Amino acid sequence: MVFDEKPRFPHGFRCAARNIGLKRDAPDLSLFVSDVDAAAAAVFTRNRFPGAPVILGRETIRGGRLRAILANSRISNVAMGERGLQDARRMAAAAAREVGTFPDLVLVSSTGVIGLPLPIEKIESGIGGMMADLCEDPLVGAAGIMTTDTYPKALSCSAGSATITVVAKGAGMIEPNMATMLAYIFTDAEFTPERLDALLRDAVHISFNMLSIDTDTSTSDTCAILASGRAGRVEEPVFRDALAAACVRMAEMLARDGEGATRLLRVTVGRAETEQQARTVAKSLVNSPLVKTMARGADPNVGRILMAIGKCLDVTLHPAGTSASINGVPVIEGGLRVAFDEEALRAELRGDPIDIEVDLAVGRAGATAFGCDLTEGYVAENASYYSS
Amino acid sequence: MVFDEKPRFPHGFRCAARNIGLKRDAPDLSLFVSDVDAAAAAVFTRNRFPGAPVILGRETIRGGRLRAILANSRISNVAMGERGLQDARRMAAAAAREVGTFPDLVLVSSTGVIGLPLPIEKIESGIGGMMADLCEDPLVGAAGIMTTDTYPKALSCSAGSATITVVAKGAGMIEPNMATMLAYIFTDAEFTPERLDALLRDAVHISFNMLSIDTDTSTSDTCAILASGRAGRVEEPVFRDALAAACVRMAEMLARDGEGATRLLRVTVGRAETEQQARTVAKSLVNSPLVKTMARGADPNVGRILMAIGKCLDVTLHPAGTSASINGVPVIEGGLRVAFDEEALRAELRGDPIDIEVDLAVGRAGATAFGCDLTEGYVAENASYYSS
Repeated sequence: MVFDEKPRFPHGFRCAARNIGLKRDAPDLSLFVSDVDAAAAAVFTRNRFPGAPVILGRETIRGGRLRAILANSRISNVAMGERGLQDARRMAAAAAREVGTFPDLVLVSSTGVIGLPLPIEKIESGIGGMMADLCEDPLVGAAGIMTTDTYPKALSCSAGSATITVVAKGAGMIEPNMATMLAYIFTDAEFTPERLDALLRDAVHISFNMLSIDTDTSTSDTCAILASGRAGRVEEPVFRDALAAACVRMAEMLARDGEGATRLLRVTVGRAETEQQARTVAKSLVNSPLVKTMARGADPNVGRILMAIGKCLDVTLHPAGTSASINGVPVIEGGLRVAFDEEALRAELRGDPIDIEVDLAVGRAGATAFGCDLTEGYVAENASYYSS
Repeated sequence: MVFDEKPRFPHGFRCAARNIGLKRDAPDLSLFVSDVDAAAAAVFTRNRFPGAPVILGRETIRGGRLRAILANSRISNVAMGERGLQDARRMAAAAAREVGTFPDLVLVSSTGVIGLPLPIEKIESGIGGMMADLCEDPLVGAAGIMTTDTYPKALSCSAGSATITVVAKGAGMIEPNMATMLAYIFTDAEFTPERLDALLRDAVHISFNMLSIDTDTSTSDTCAILASGRAGRVEEPVFRDALAAACVRMAEMLARDGEGATRLLRVTVGRAETEQQARTVAKSLVNSPLVKTMARGADPNVGRILMAIGKCLDVTLHPAGTSASINGVPVIEGGLRVAFDEEALRAELRGDPIDIEVDLAVGRAGATAFGCDLTEGYVAENASYYSS
């Protein structure tokens, strides 16, 4: 899949971002608008304490149509009870007034610190006139939803005659479970909400749902797709492949920019008994603090790979047949450490990405998980996130 | 339970430790000896790639008797195949020669880097004459099994007319699953191997099996108990309580001295539907990198507590009834963040231990988990453990 050098929107989508005083001086409110009522689908966090925007979003998406997305960063509107839900509704109403549509065609998101009240008045007054700021650069909207991300993230690619654009934020509290951080996908292809929903779930299954930065599942994860239809019909297999590739690429971008991370850690597990088991082992490796610090230090402590496979108690293993490699260098064969050139392996571990391949030798299923190294920077950022 | 100010051995147990050249200059080989063939029981790691000493240990412990334990640090004898098993047997034979007993009355352990061959010749020659070094201070033996621990760990207490002594090492790659790191328990109480086994499993269930420093399950975890019988019979309930208290205290010591850790994090979950569910939620909190870094930074980011409860997808929750406190200060009530004195809470979070209590309000079961904060020191240590 070839991605555009500079991300662009499909026909009929634009965005704007502003600072309304939630962050010190960076953009903290983003508005994404479709020219038409777009077919839409979304998946949300499975965390059992979902934020108010997620509760409202589940209701909104039932209509299968969206005209706009309004998202603020810095404060997440979680654990605020009835007041939180009212604030989320007021946020949707404010966006609807500005855009000239109905509140139930607006998806809202709030991302940032959990457990502080949303400054809803700032949002209501801050949004005034944003329609006049709309532009065609998805990176503008991406900037307004950043929390600890180090740069705004958007990408686009073609799918037949249509375009697919993904705008997302990630960084920490990321092991999506069913959905993910915030990811908004825009396309001008034509699909019904039902087909969009199926296509979205398939793409998320192998991309954002295989991403883990720190095993912690956010209360605000949201992944939505809007299809304006302005480019007409696209063959579904073509669209499916492009959407999956775009989501995988974005998952890799989010992993590489995980809090404190310096590189992408990609783990592919092959010949597992079932896909679920392959996913479990791949996740065990990308989540293991000891595998993550091995990557951090470019330290060829490869026995930790066996440890992280072996702690998957419910997976069918054939220890004497298990093999693993790092960037193509075999390090485990038949369950045993093999001799390897330590300096060459150190050099690989200093690179980006680090690809760990595991062969379980028990079946035919496989999966790939996306993560990052664990660094002092992760600790430093998260030891003062509330206060800083 | 009152613990001895200075740990001591029960009647009939002694130990020695030496440097045999595995570590630069610290003790790296420990021998524990009983005057008599002691009744014995043990539990081992559930990791699917167990070290050779674990494979051999499972065989040895079937006899229900032990005379000695020989343990080396620095190199763990894991993933070494047939050679590893032969080395473990040679290690037991060397100890048997020195002690004057049979190899099947010797438990051996090796802890340290995974995936390097054991320097068995150094151990075979190094053990010569160790019987002459035997002393009555359990801390001497504790020093020889240390890896990244910052100090040797031993404790003792009375159980009726008998004594219970626990010697252990911990630090990293610790989320025991069925057993734990290395912990050797010595008593002069009289029990059959079968009763010892049951008592050990009960104690481990609420102590070492509720300890997690980094979610990574070691391939070498071993917890053994030796009962010489020299103090005669002790009432089982008295012994059971003392053994459980001693193991919980040692689990807390290991947690507080986790790699890079600066304090003990203790999470108690109450009113869960089942004990297993209480354990799952308590583990989710002590394992959450975001809860652990909150402790690190004394940052009152209490919404993370809800996040870590809410990501337990298979636990019965009543979100609107969920409450939590930190060192007795209520921070969540009815699923919502409550107002609290931020400075007072920061002061609590700077203390040691940090006690988080969670009330799920759905049942009657409870559990306590033991962990530590996540610091830059953990990352630094584990980014170069193999090389340093």
